[in-house]
Amino acid sequence: MKLKILGSQGALPRRGMYSSSQILNIKNKHILIDCPEGIQFQLKSFRIKFSKIDFILISHAHGDHYFGLIGLISTYSLLRRKNKLSVFCPRVVSEILNTQMKISSMFISYELEIIELNSNDSEKIYESNDFSISTIPLKHSTYCNGFLFQEKNNKRKLNIDLALKLNINKVYYNKLTKGENVFNENGDEINYREVTSKGLKNKSYAYCSDTTYYPSIIEKISHVDLLYHESTFLEKDREKAKLTMHSTAMDAAKIARDAQVNKLIIGHFSSRYENLDLFVNEVKQIFQNVELAFDGKDIDI
Amino acid sequence: MKLKILGSQGALPRRGMYSSSQILNIKNKHILIDCPEGIQFQLKSFRIKFSKIDFILISHAHGDHYFGLIGLISTYSLLRRKNKLSVFCPRVVSEILNTQMKISSMFISYELEIIELNSNDSEKIYESNDFSISTIPLKHSTYCNGFLFQEKNNKRKLNIDLALKLNINKVYYNKLTKGENVFNENGDEINYREVTSKGLKNKSYAYCSDTTYYPSIIEKISHVDLLYHESTFLEKDREKAKLTMHSTAMDAAKIARDAQVNKLIIGHFSSRYENLDLFVNEVKQIFQNVELAFDGKDIDI
Repeated sequence: MKLKILGSQGALPRRGMYSSSQILNIKNKHILIDCPEGIQFQLKSFRIKFSKIDFILISHAHGDHYFGLIGLISTYSLLRRKNKLSVFCPRVVSEILNTQMKISSMFISYELEIIELNSNDSEKIYESNDFSISTIPLKHSTYCNGFLFQEKNNKRKLNIDLALKLNINKVYYNKLTKGENVFNENGDEINYREVTSKGLKNKSYAYCSDTTYYPSIIEKISHVDLLYHESTFLEKDREKAKLTMHSTAMDAAKIARDAQVNKLIIGHFSSRYENLDLFVNEVKQIFQNVELAFDGKDIDI
Repeated sequence: MKLKILGSQGALPRRGMYSSSQILNIKNKHILIDCPEGIQFQLKSFRIKFSKIDFILISHAHGDHYFGLIGLISTYSLLRRKNKLSVFCPRVVSEILNTQMKISSMFISYELEIIELNSNDSEKIYESNDFSISTIPLKHSTYCNGFLFQEKNNKRKLNIDLALKLNINKVYYNKLTKGENVFNENGDEINYREVTSKGLKNKSYAYCSDTTYYPSIIEKISHVDLLYHESTFLEKDREKAKLTMHSTAMDAAKIARDAQVNKLIIGHFSSRYENLDLFVNEVKQIFQNVELAFDGKDIDI
């Protein structure tokens, strides 16, 4: 999995930096996570082909997470997109999209599938042979989901020399790496464990924005390889965090520590802070493997 | 009048350049003309205070002219705007705005006045003692207006020495510069022409985007000091211009020449062109005083 941060900031614009959104490349699918105003310019800036995007996930119906959606949907038609686009979003966003497209008689050149999210429980919203996406219900001032991305079926590594020696027909190699037993040319059953070893680990990524400190998510995101958690405020502004149902850097750190994640990325910073290093310092009091999100940052998961 | 180009491009995003919009400072009022996606980032880039804007004018209901409106309206509340904001826009835009604000239960901290434009004739949509704004009906693939800004009542220049000599009470000086006759201390009527000379000329600015070549506008914009006219295409792509109801650089030039305007600014370029100088060259075949719009450009009118 490869993650690119397209925008790292909170709701109010900061010069040269955009509101929070990310693009995740998982098993050759490209998923846009949140879609604030200006997303097209960020995609252009980072030379990401618009047509690459297969899915768009919207966490919640606050403008800094979805105001760019209508523009992107419209631009795709100007670009004569043909391949299907699936948008997963809360009911409010779907209602606004549908109404706006109807009132403005918007021409759509491709299949646009809008899937409404409205469950308060975690649900698997997409599954293929390669990976799955589940919602992570969060606690914010409006209905809000994070998203958990989990690779699956990463293939085992084949010992080819041994396979040849055991007289296994090449057509069965794929089955073996998928963890299935096969028969060799002599008619003997070969256990896949004999000729394969553990392949790449199935990686996982959890995106959690926007939310107040909400320990209920810990079980769901336990041991993920990467956790993105919002940290709009510093601990010294806890009252503001409480009022707006956002997290502090310390909140994000506690979640990362208690979920025993491998690495934490924080973002969605309030524009009131000049020095973002203070966020990292606050997290490091209790969790070490942390980095700041910034526009354009690439992360290999 | 001072004009700043915030965005200069057509509908499709180009790296580092934004869709068309401008901010006009006329008699200390600030008017945002069109409001595409990303407008907040452009205002930030050019260090323009958001709160300065008194009016927003939307020419037509295509996304590259209004998709930034909902974000700006929403951000104003986050910034706790108090002063009134007036938005002049076609009915479709007003309907979309109102619906979106309703569905998302958007909190608005200030008086938001949305004025629907739907006349096919030119109408004066704003008038103060200092200036007026009229619509310029254009011909595009959807209902579209340009806007004409006209200063008025620029004061005459008073010859103070003469006024003193003629025994005119100081309280009447303002009347004289406004072109009114007064009585002096001796009871004699003084014609304002005796003691004042012509002041600054009342300037005018016409914004015309988007439109096909439409000579009906010539009378309305005759002799303006500055004309902004869209030129999405070059003459070699006339077929595309026809199909999309846009103008070529030559179309803009003809309008500028026939309306005998002082200066022409062209913009709203299609992203297909790399070398924008070709637009200027095309215009200069028949009209000399022309400049390219580019993001951040300042023009004194």
